[in-house]
Amino acid sequence: MKELVKRDLDKIWHPYTQMKDCEDMPPVPIVKAEGIKLYDNTGNFYYDTISSWWCNVHGHNHPYIKKAIKKQLDLFEHVLFAGFTHEPAIELAERLVKITPPGLDRVFFSDNGSTAVEVAMKMSVQYWRNNGKKDKTKIVALDKAYHGDTVGAMSVSAKGAYTEQFSSMLFDTMRVPTPYCYRCPAGKTKGECGTECLSMLESVLKQSSTEIAAVILEPVLMGAGGMIIYPAEYLKGAKSLTEKYDVHLIADEVATGFGRTGKMFACEHAGISPDIMCISKGITSGYLPLAATMVTQEIFDSFYGPVNEKKTFYHGHTYTANPVACAAANASIELFEKENTLKNVENIHSRLEEFLGTVSGLPFVGDTRSVGAVGAIELVKDKTTKEPFPVEERNGLKIYKQGLKHNILLRPLGDIIYFFLPLCVSNEELDDIFKKAQKSIIL
Amino acid sequence: MKELVKRDLDKIWHPYTQMKDCEDMPPVPIVKAEGIKLYDNTGNFYYDTISSWWCNVHGHNHPYIKKAIKKQLDLFEHVLFAGFTHEPAIELAERLVKITPPGLDRVFFSDNGSTAVEVAMKMSVQYWRNNGKKDKTKIVALDKAYHGDTVGAMSVSAKGAYTEQFSSMLFDTMRVPTPYCYRCPAGKTKGECGTECLSMLESVLKQSSTEIAAVILEPVLMGAGGMIIYPAEYLKGAKSLTEKYDVHLIADEVATGFGRTGKMFACEHAGISPDIMCISKGITSGYLPLAATMVTQEIFDSFYGPVNEKKTFYHGHTYTANPVACAAANASIELFEKENTLKNVENIHSRLEEFLGTVSGLPFVGDTRSVGAVGAIELVKDKTTKEPFPVEERNGLKIYKQGLKHNILLRPLGDIIYFFLPLCVSNEELDDIFKKAQKSIIL
Repeated sequence: MKELVKRDLDKIWHPYTQMKDCEDMPPVPIVKAEGIKLYDNTGNFYYDTISSWWCNVHGHNHPYIKKAIKKQLDLFEHVLFAGFTHEPAIELAERLVKITPPGLDRVFFSDNGSTAVEVAMKMSVQYWRNNGKKDKTKIVALDKAYHGDTVGAMSVSAKGAYTEQFSSMLFDTMRVPTPYCYRCPAGKTKGECGTECLSMLESVLKQSSTEIAAVILEPVLMGAGGMIIYPAEYLKGAKSLTEKYDVHLIADEVATGFGRTGKMFACEHAGISPDIMCISKGITSGYLPLAATMVTQEIFDSFYGPVNEKKTFYHGHTYTANPVACAAANASIELFEKENTLKNVENIHSRLEEFLGTVSGLPFVGDTRSVGAVGAIELVKDKTTKEPFPVEERNGLKIYKQGLKHNILLRPLGDIIYFFLPLCVSNEELDDIFKKAQKSIIL
Repeated sequence: MKELVKRDLDKIWHPYTQMKDCEDMPPVPIVKAEGIKLYDNTGNFYYDTISSWWCNVHGHNHPYIKKAIKKQLDLFEHVLFAGFTHEPAIELAERLVKITPPGLDRVFFSDNGSTAVEVAMKMSVQYWRNNGKKDKTKIVALDKAYHGDTVGAMSVSAKGAYTEQFSSMLFDTMRVPTPYCYRCPAGKTKGECGTECLSMLESVLKQSSTEIAAVILEPVLMGAGGMIIYPAEYLKGAKSLTEKYDVHLIADEVATGFGRTGKMFACEHAGISPDIMCISKGITSGYLPLAATMVTQEIFDSFYGPVNEKKTFYHGHTYTANPVACAAANASIELFEKENTLKNVENIHSRLEEFLGTVSGLPFVGDTRSVGAVGAIELVKDKTTKEPFPVEERNGLKIYKQGLKHNILLRPLGDIIYFFLPLCVSNEELDDIFKKAQKSIIL
């Protein structure tokens, strides 16, 4: 173990990591994984309670997905996706059109969540140009949003630690208050409000719709923004407003898609179809990098025409629609039916709710919230005033360390502790996970 | 075949493709691949003469790479890369440090060329902030550059078809003339100049170095910019100038890396080490999406410190250092030695040169150029004046169509026809490819 760690720390720069922290918290070398367990090289295991950054769906090392990958490898691993095509991508596109909200009839593939978001925004901006509305270039985003780390994706993400170093590179975005019920931007209390946050969105749209291309948001659940879960009414309202003011609604379902919130896609909670949808993470059940941006036929059609009309969408990545990743995705989507995955999420959710009930009384727990297989615990210094802990105490990190000792992976977002469970977790595993969590969530 | 094509055109939006063009040039469905041949579903084959967008190195369906992938799949397919690590990534990082130019001692993984470039630029900008030089935020790029399609990557790419629709989203970049010898920006003739283009770079650096973070370029070979091949002296000079004016040199080796230009990395042609290097494409021999940004220890160290100093590099992607992709990369790098790949590139290059000699006399060929396994043919209307053909004639596309009929894949860049050969191509295959090319390159 030590040797691998030393070799790692000698050469590697880990993502989102202050490498100095590794001095007393070295990376754990994983040598195998099975179901929802990760095994290190000393035989110790960790429940993958955050689905390896929210992507694992059906568990690690699943024979069905593995078989599909190997089968594709024996045919061919990759071919460029311009001028050429292949069945794994065609099949996947058909499946995606079928399982996503109605109207999303076209699929543009890319490699990760950031690129799926960049593609979505570029399509929206170019759509308006194709239609003679060159002034519609601005994007509206929630002020606590996270949509990725490339320059375009950062531009529509919250101002803060992830983006402040790069402000000189970012384009201007119109920001509206986040429907964060625990810390309501309108000072209301959850369940006793008139969705005032929607009026805030409306006032921006009303004032500037001639300059706005799209509103982007993560539907219902905002992941890296702090596991903020907001009412479906907001999403429904946002959809109506984007229609009313003639701008696109981009749903970033990178984290929320593929069953994580209890529906196949989180937009279903509000019964809405966005104009553009970004998906990645769970698309391959967390096996291989793949992403897609889904759009309406109307958007697609606006790019269709003789080449000299300059409507072509010039975007691509070398590994676009990699056949091996597409094969993994096809197998993963099949498993949803075969293993009745969404039914299991219902069960996970009720157990998760029960557990969150048991910790909500703790003196340092300000809020608990959940949707589908995702549950969050917001740590606060003062429950009454909701005053956060000083950042430098790093309380979330303390609980993470305690979790690792108890075989669970509670990698926090600041002082938000959360579960982002693989959708295949069993009752027995849940019992054990919650028992271990109880011992870990102590300050 | 028809049924697959119909299904494809009903749902898929292909990259860089005017989908209306598919009406008379439908995408070809590939069902298997072997070595450098792609097979469609009617039994027809195509030589993959552009290495499936410049990524395939050792041929398709290579048993050694496939075996490595399957072996890793049987252990585990993926785990998050913060707080955790694994041997495939550690091994790959060690190999990369070993085979890249001296001084590039740290590896930051991502998924594709665009993200590798975004990471590089973000690191450079934050490095200067970490060192108290907050004004050093601008990037200098060549005016015909291509570095990718995300907003940051587009910002440092040429103004033109790929970016003009998105100008409202891009940050300002300082552009310098491209060392494009066939169309020299200083009006000189190749071999008879004083590298005047370097003085143009110097004047920008001299004037603005306090605002400049980095110069970015593709070393020696500019891919999507038009298969422009420039003298190593320019690269050498650029390295000296970046040192002199205290800015980073970012080498985008996404297309040029992994043997394509005859050296493992194109920087070796000039014997230089950049401060930051971006790699992708050939890293997995074109099997699975993976990328890396390599930096000096000095740059890494500037981010190292107590977390409250706010030097952490907040960037990451879900599939960062995907173990399966890392396993493919490790196998591919091993094959360079096992199969004496670089030696074969020497042979490919001399054969390519010979072939280019035979077409250079054609009345519509203005220039031929080559490096390693890459050779380009620039079509012009008038050889004397170098006047290009009218864009709407789409002559490059004509030759592409003719190539497909002769089993070769000459997907052009406008009116630049090029070979970007897999490094495993044999003499026999080369003979056949050039014979078929001769029949295809006709206007």
